[in-house]
Amino acid sequence: MKDRVSEAVIRRLPRYYRFLCELERAGTERVSSGDLSREMRLNASQIRQDFNCFGGFGQQGYGYHVRTLRSEIGKILGLNRSYSAVIVGVGNIGAALAHYAGFEKEGLRIAALFDADAAMVGKVVGGLAIRSLSEFEAFISLEGADVGIIAVPKDAAQALADRMVAAGVRSIWNFAPVDVAAAVPTENVHMSDSLHILTYRLNNIQEAIEPKK
Amino acid sequence: MKDRVSEAVIRRLPRYYRFLCELERAGTERVSSGDLSREMRLNASQIRQDFNCFGGFGQQGYGYHVRTLRSEIGKILGLNRSYSAVIVGVGNIGAALAHYAGFEKEGLRIAALFDADAAMVGKVVGGLAIRSLSEFEAFISLEGADVGIIAVPKDAAQALADRMVAAGVRSIWNFAPVDVAAAVPTENVHMSDSLHILTYRLNNIQEAIEPKK
Repeated sequence: MKDRVSEAVIRRLPRYYRFLCELERAGTERVSSGDLSREMRLNASQIRQDFNCFGGFGQQGYGYHVRTLRSEIGKILGLNRSYSAVIVGVGNIGAALAHYAGFEKEGLRIAALFDADAAMVGKVVGGLAIRSLSEFEAFISLEGADVGIIAVPKDAAQALADRMVAAGVRSIWNFAPVDVAAAVPTENVHMSDSLHILTYRLNNIQEAIEPKK
Repeated sequence: MKDRVSEAVIRRLPRYYRFLCELERAGTERVSSGDLSREMRLNASQIRQDFNCFGGFGQQGYGYHVRTLRSEIGKILGLNRSYSAVIVGVGNIGAALAHYAGFEKEGLRIAALFDADAAMVGKVVGGLAIRSLSEFEAFISLEGADVGIIAVPKDAAQALADRMVAAGVRSIWNFAPVDVAAAVPTENVHMSDSLHILTYRLNNIQEAIEPKK
């Protein structure tokens, strides 16, 4: 593997992975970079270049073996391991995340829920009793956490990120609608970005030039 | 504006918009493409090229006026208008979306909630009584909907997308963990993509080479 894989390549890997999972489910055995290119609307030579960052995967002229490629990209993404996560903030988004059964399949195990609101402590959500945020550091020092999920209001997000890092959480997945910065791997989820792309498209398709409203 | 703006440029616009909102809140008046470049980790010439797709915005050597640029990009994204949305599926994610107050600020007004489960009908979530999915077509033909939000299990997602388009919904924002395709503007939200990028980084930072577990 190359020493430094570019941000852009890394960001495409989950898309490759998703697409290959679909092909595998559909029973497809082999796929060419040309097929991937058409279906994923990426340049075929870019796809080959991306895969070359990780040593290739394919035999020229034969295409890629779907299951092998899916499994190799899964390994690169670290999906062959499992990860423990804690959720802080059990409002609507926190509760939705706590309930989401799909995480298990991704190898993400929600180990604990925390909330700063004393009225929430003890309530059971997704099979876990909510703990007081005051117990956070003690819990992390005992159990550790691979992923700290931030689901608090945006004004509290950065301070919580700092607190997570200080406590020893190994990465941050932030759902508060504001970017947080941290010294550990951090992903800020921006749901409104995809809404803005939708509104862009609504205003740039033919029928939308003269909106009805 | 150019006739055809590339997908990659469109996908960067919400990031520019978010970053400019932050600068405006911080009271910053002017910003150079160099500053944007450093903060957003994009090439400065790419930023200038992106803005040129929409006619420029800046005076050479003076940088960009933050509020004007934020407002212009907001207009391009269609954020100067408001949009009506319906949510179908009021499970955890649907309920989280129904409760999320931030949408109002984005100009997105949730007009109605629908669920196929008769036991859910009539329950009030986020101030709206859940309607039966059997009323969907009648509601849309009367009220219309700019955005149809899909929050049903993944096996039901594509059929729902088809039904939304047939009913006259103008765009689709899909939160089911599977891609849907439709003849209207469609955004598939993939929360697991950012999780996979986190797990990639967890496995590719120095300390993670020998994981403790």
